[in-house]
Amino acid sequence: MRIHRIILPEDSDSPLYLKLADALRRSILLKEVTPGERLPSIRRLSDTLNVNPATVAAAYRILEREGWVTARAGSGVYVMDRPVDAGGNLDPAVEALGASTLMDLERGRIPPQGINMAAGTPSPRLFPVTEFRSLMDEVLERDGGWAFGYQESTGWAPFREALREYAESALGIRVSIDDIQVISGAQQGIDLSAKALLRSGDPVIVERPTYRGALSVFWSRGSDTVSVELTPQGMDLGVLERRVQAQVPRLVYIISRYQNPTTYSWSAEALEKLLYLAEKYNFYILEDDLLSDLYYGKAPEPSCLKAMDRQGRVIYIRSFSKVLMPGLRLGMLLVPPPLRGAYEAAKRSTDIATDGFIQRAVELYLRRSYHIPRLQFLRAHYGALYRSIIQEIDTRLVPLGLHYLPPEGGLHLWLSLPDHLTGSQVHSAALAAGLALIPEAVYGNAEISSGEKRADSHIRLSIAALEKDEGPRAIEILEDVIRTRRV
Amino acid sequence: MRIHRIILPEDSDSPLYLKLADALRRSILLKEVTPGERLPSIRRLSDTLNVNPATVAAAYRILEREGWVTARAGSGVYVMDRPVDAGGNLDPAVEALGASTLMDLERGRIPPQGINMAAGTPSPRLFPVTEFRSLMDEVLERDGGWAFGYQESTGWAPFREALREYAESALGIRVSIDDIQVISGAQQGIDLSAKALLRSGDPVIVERPTYRGALSVFWSRGSDTVSVELTPQGMDLGVLERRVQAQVPRLVYIISRYQNPTTYSWSAEALEKLLYLAEKYNFYILEDDLLSDLYYGKAPEPSCLKAMDRQGRVIYIRSFSKVLMPGLRLGMLLVPPPLRGAYEAAKRSTDIATDGFIQRAVELYLRRSYHIPRLQFLRAHYGALYRSIIQEIDTRLVPLGLHYLPPEGGLHLWLSLPDHLTGSQVHSAALAAGLALIPEAVYGNAEISSGEKRADSHIRLSIAALEKDEGPRAIEILEDVIRTRRV
Repeated sequence: MRIHRIILPEDSDSPLYLKLADALRRSILLKEVTPGERLPSIRRLSDTLNVNPATVAAAYRILEREGWVTARAGSGVYVMDRPVDAGGNLDPAVEALGASTLMDLERGRIPPQGINMAAGTPSPRLFPVTEFRSLMDEVLERDGGWAFGYQESTGWAPFREALREYAESALGIRVSIDDIQVISGAQQGIDLSAKALLRSGDPVIVERPTYRGALSVFWSRGSDTVSVELTPQGMDLGVLERRVQAQVPRLVYIISRYQNPTTYSWSAEALEKLLYLAEKYNFYILEDDLLSDLYYGKAPEPSCLKAMDRQGRVIYIRSFSKVLMPGLRLGMLLVPPPLRGAYEAAKRSTDIATDGFIQRAVELYLRRSYHIPRLQFLRAHYGALYRSIIQEIDTRLVPLGLHYLPPEGGLHLWLSLPDHLTGSQVHSAALAAGLALIPEAVYGNAEISSGEKRADSHIRLSIAALEKDEGPRAIEILEDVIRTRRV
Repeated sequence: MRIHRIILPEDSDSPLYLKLADALRRSILLKEVTPGERLPSIRRLSDTLNVNPATVAAAYRILEREGWVTARAGSGVYVMDRPVDAGGNLDPAVEALGASTLMDLERGRIPPQGINMAAGTPSPRLFPVTEFRSLMDEVLERDGGWAFGYQESTGWAPFREALREYAESALGIRVSIDDIQVISGAQQGIDLSAKALLRSGDPVIVERPTYRGALSVFWSRGSDTVSVELTPQGMDLGVLERRVQAQVPRLVYIISRYQNPTTYSWSAEALEKLLYLAEKYNFYILEDDLLSDLYYGKAPEPSCLKAMDRQGRVIYIRSFSKVLMPGLRLGMLLVPPPLRGAYEAAKRSTDIATDGFIQRAVELYLRRSYHIPRLQFLRAHYGALYRSIIQEIDTRLVPLGLHYLPPEGGLHLWLSLPDHLTGSQVHSAALAAGLALIPEAVYGNAEISSGEKRADSHIRLSIAALEKDEGPRAIEILEDVIRTRRV
C-alpha cells in the first residue's frame, strides 16, 4: 500500500481516527489497495503518519466493522474483496436486545475465520439481485418520478392486490385488499399494533421465550407483558386460560410457525383452542409469521392461524425479510375490518407511508411469479443444510446428552443442553473456538419486574448465514466445547 | 382508441379487471392513446372484448384512482395528461388529519382541469430520476446483495459520514457521526422522539397552528399538548415562559423556518431566547426542518436553531422529502449525546433499520455533490413561481382585504382573509371553481379537550405542485370567489 497517498484533511474537526478511516476507505474504493492486500501494521502506519497507534487501531476497527477489511489474528489487517456491511447479518432478536456483548458477538468478535450460526437472516449471497434490479429498472421506465412520490398510507393499491392474491394462493388466507396494510418490515407491524391497540397498562400475553423485539415494543408502549410457557405444540392453554380469566389481555402475541427462538410450531388443535379463547374472552391475537413457507418436508397445515380465522380475531404480520431481502423493509399486515381505521392512523403518524418504489418493484416480483421459484430454491438450499446439520447433531451431540426437536422448517435449531451447562457458557467457549451462536439467556424474561433468573438451558443455532461446508466444522466445535466442559 | 391493441394475457391467473387495467395503462404509457382522448364507453369496450361491463368499470376505477384517467360526469372517461398518483401529492398535514373530505380534496375531488395548491410536495416531474437511477445501478454493481441486508439501526456508517459533512457545509451544524440517526422520513423523527422522550401524560408545547402529523404522534403517546401562538417572529415567548413556569414541558416542538402552515420563520433573537429557556428550565426542543434551504432571497441566518445549539438542547429533524423525493422515506435526526441510546433503542423497536439500499444511493448522491445543484435548481424554479404568485396576490387579492407576509422561502403562502370569510368557505367555493387549497380549520386545536372553536381565518396556498402557467388562473379563481362572497 502506498502510504504517501494517505492525506488527512486538516480543515474538518472530526476526530483523527475518522479522518484516517475515511482516507483508507477512499483508497480501497479507488482501488489504490486491492482485495486481499495487507494493510500496514498499526505501528508502521502510526510512525509514518505521525499519529498515535490508538488512532490507527480505531480507524482499522471502523473499517472492519463496516466490512472493508478483516483482521486475521497474528497476521494483520487485509482488504476484503467487497464491502460486507457490518449490519448485513444482524439478527433482529439480538439487535433488539442491544446488549453490547451480543452486538460484539454478531460483529467484530466473530473470529475472522469463524462460523456464524447466530445470524437469523439469509446471506446476501442468496438474494435475487439480478432479477430485482431488472424489475426496478422496469418500474423506473414505466413510472419515472411517480415511483418516488408519496404513497397512500395503506399501501400502493396494485401491490395490495398482488399481496391479496399471494395470501390466497400461497397461504390459503382469503381477505379483501381493504384488509391489507403495507408495512415497512415486520417489526413495524408489531409497532403499529401496539399503537393501534395498546394504551399504557394494557396487558399483553406472550410466549415464553419469545422474540425480544416484540417485548421492546410492548414495554415502550407501557404494556404489562405476561408470558405463558411455549410447549412443542403451542402455548400451555390451561395456563393461558387461567391467565386470561385473571385479566383479559388486549393482545396475545404468537409466532405460530418455527417460532423464534424455540422453533416450535403450534398444533392445529392448539390454534383452534386459542381462537376459541379469543372469541370467548374477547381479545385479539397478533400472529407474527416470519417464515411459515420455509418448510423442508410437508407444508404446515394450516399454513398459519390467520388461515383459520373466521371471526376477525387475528392480526397477521407477514415479513418478506427472510424469504426475499431484509433491507427492503417490506411486509404485509392483515387487519380485521373494525381495526382498519386505527391501523391506518397509526401508520400515517409513524412514517406516513412505505417507500412506493420498493412496493412497485415487489409488486412486479409477485405478479411475474418470481416468488414461488425463489421459495422452492430456498427450501432446497436450506433443506439440504438443515438435513446435513441435524445428521451431524444426531451423530455427535445427542450422544453427549443434548436433545432437540427437528422443526422440519425455518432457519433455527433449538438445542437443550445437559444440566451442567448453561447457554452462556457454551456461547463463550464456542465463540472462542470460532463459532457464534445465541444462548437462551439473551431472550430474558417477559415480565419486566420478574425476580426470576433468566432461563439459560438452550442454545439457538441458525443455518441462515451458514455456508454449505461449514456445518460439520461447526458441530465439531460444539462437540469439543461440550466434551471439554464436561471434564 | 384502437381497441384491437388491447390484449388480455391468458397465462396469468390475476383477475380480469386487473389485466385490463394493466393493458390500458400500457396503452397510455406507450402513447397509443393520448392525453385528453376519450376512452371507449364501458358498454362498447365490454362488447368488443367480450367481458362483463363490471370488469371494464373496475379497470377504469383503478386507472382513475391511480390518476391515469379521469371520469367526467355524463361524458365519459378521459386520459389525463400525466399520471397524478393517487398518493403522489398528498400533503402529510392533510394525510395526517385523515378527514375524508380532505382526502377527497387531494384526490378525486380536484376537478379534472383543476389546479392543486393543496399539495405540499413537489411534483414528481421535478424529481432527479435519471441521476438517481444511475446511482442505484452503481450501488448494485458495487455491493450486490449486500445492499439489501440489514443495516445498523443508527444508519449505514458511510451515509452518516456524508450526512455529517452535509450538515456542516450546507447548514452550519457541527456534529459527530455518532450524533446522527438515520430515519425513514421526517415523520419517523417525530415518532422516535415521542418514544425516546415521552411517557403518558408528559407535557409537550407546540406552536399554534402546527403540523397535524406531529400532534397525532404526541397524542398517540398519551402526551398533553399545549399550544402557544406563533407570531411572525416565532412563539410568543412571554406566554411560553409562563406556560413553562406552570409546568415544565418535556419537549417544545417547532418548525423554525417557513413553518407549516403559517410560513413564519423565527427571528434569531427568539431562537436565542428559546434556547435560553430550554437551558434554564431543562427541557428539550424538537426542531423539524422541512425546507430551510429552500430560500428565494438571502439564506436564513442562522440556518436553523440547531446551528446555535451549544448545550445539546436541540433534537433536529431533517427531511429529504421536499428537496429530494418523498417516496425515498429518508431523513436525518441529530440527537444530543445523552439521548443517543434512547433513540437507537426506539429506532430498533420501530423498524429495526432504514432501507440500506436507499441509504447507499443517497450517500453517493451527497458525496458526488448532486445535492447543491439540485437545491439551486429548486430555488430557481420555485423562486420564479413564488415571485409570480405574490405579484398576482398583491395585484388582485390585497386590494380585496387579504393580507400576508411574504415568507421569501418554502413552498407555502399563508393568506389572512377578510373578517366576513372563513377558510372553509373559501376552500369550498374555490374547489367548486377548480382550485384546491387548505383552509386553516384543518389544523384544528392542539389541546385535545379544548372547547375553543377552531381558528379558520386563513388559507394555505402551496406552490409545490403548481405548474408554471397555473398561477395567474389560480389567483383569478380566488379573486372571483372573494368578490362573489363579498356580495
